[in-house]
Amino acid sequence: MVVAYDGTNYCGWQIQPNGITIEEVLNTHLSQLLGEEIVVKGASRTDSGVHSMGNIAFFDTDTRMAADKISFALNQRLPEDIVVQSSEQVDDDWNPHNVNSTKVYEYRIRNSKMRMPLDRLYTYFYHYDLDVEAMDKAAKYLVGEHDFTSFASVKSQVNSFVRNLYDVSVVRNGDIITIRCEGNGFLYNMVRIIAGTLIQVGCHKIEPEKVKEILDARDREAAGPTAPAEGLVMISWTEDC
Amino acid sequence: MVVAYDGTNYCGWQIQPNGITIEEVLNTHLSQLLGEEIVVKGASRTDSGVHSMGNIAFFDTDTRMAADKISFALNQRLPEDIVVQSSEQVDDDWNPHNVNSTKVYEYRIRNSKMRMPLDRLYTYFYHYDLDVEAMDKAAKYLVGEHDFTSFASVKSQVNSFVRNLYDVSVVRNGDIITIRCEGNGFLYNMVRIIAGTLIQVGCHKIEPEKVKEILDARDREAAGPTAPAEGLVMISWTEDC
Repeated sequence: MVVAYDGTNYCGWQIQPNGITIEEVLNTHLSQLLGEEIVVKGASRTDSGVHSMGNIAFFDTDTRMAADKISFALNQRLPEDIVVQSSEQVDDDWNPHNVNSTKVYEYRIRNSKMRMPLDRLYTYFYHYDLDVEAMDKAAKYLVGEHDFTSFASVKSQVNSFVRNLYDVSVVRNGDIITIRCEGNGFLYNMVRIIAGTLIQVGCHKIEPEKVKEILDARDREAAGPTAPAEGLVMISWTEDC
Repeated sequence: MVVAYDGTNYCGWQIQPNGITIEEVLNTHLSQLLGEEIVVKGASRTDSGVHSMGNIAFFDTDTRMAADKISFALNQRLPEDIVVQSSEQVDDDWNPHNVNSTKVYEYRIRNSKMRMPLDRLYTYFYHYDLDVEAMDKAAKYLVGEHDFTSFASVKSQVNSFVRNLYDVSVVRNGDIITIRCEGNGFLYNMVRIIAGTLIQVGCHKIEPEKVKEILDARDREAAGPTAPAEGLVMISWTEDC
């Protein structure tokens, strides 16, 4: 299933002892719909407050309901801040973590003197004027295959910190700055640390060229802060052909 | 004051016996801030659920606080879904209804097969594919000085139904269709009735040319339905030079 959600009112994807999560809501309503206990898994375990337009959830079921009809039936039951965009049958052993895929994330910043209520839930408000040209220049140092240890939470539990970013771009449209990251995989908090670092470039605290040094340092301390969750949207997950 | 708000959780601008309104929240916090009873008036009394990026509120005060500082001080007190963008002093007898001004409204439609949680509060979701070219063609018949009786709520209490629309355009950007209306004034529900009528054009229930007949009829029954409030945003109010 391709799952879109407004993360504002959820404690992220993964089931937590305190607070409601996307995974839990999907499990509850899928189990009721299909009349069997369903346990979904996700392609990306997004953090508390992070949004999605295209996360992937997959699960085993014995249902005879046509796979493409499940999204429509499930949407009748889901709260309005979670919508399944589509559903399809996959092979028994299919798993998003075992296939090559392209993930796209966007981090959005409202860069203006005053907050704007209409996008407060989906952008990070940043008051000081940001130099988008410098940010985009810095972003280009991140493109390609690198060890992204400096851009991963110290809580990351992975065998390799090497990822391949196909593109990182920074574009301004009026008061909204969008940092778009496209790659074969992302480490824990990676896009938010990229955003936090590019914001430092944008307000001239560090030079664009410094990003190369930060990569080389392989040290989380070298990069900027983790930007707030509300600016982050998982745009899409696509299996490579 | 230029006032932006997310209208989702308010019963519109004007004070109501049941439910909280923008006017009421501004009165309460301005009165506390300035230490005197403040009663604001608005340029546009937006309906329940309608949003604003630039409504105008004006009021009398004896305060010595610099006018341009009031917005900053007030924003410290306001809930996050109302933000005063700026404030300035005007003449004692200034009133937005007595000056020539240009108002811009946008009506936004999500036109896709599935709802998208991230814009559910700020767009009207319309499932069937809309023909934007036909809608834009129809919109052009509304441009200019006309009697807009057909496009006004029967509850309108005005002396004249004649208004001058400087531009009406319909543009698609991905799944979002924006109807933008610019003019010297708007009648009660006018933009929402324009949107409801253009949607009928967009799904080929009526021909674009029919809009001319609807205008000539001077009868609310001739036009389409009033489109839902959540798609409407008051973009700006500007005094003409």
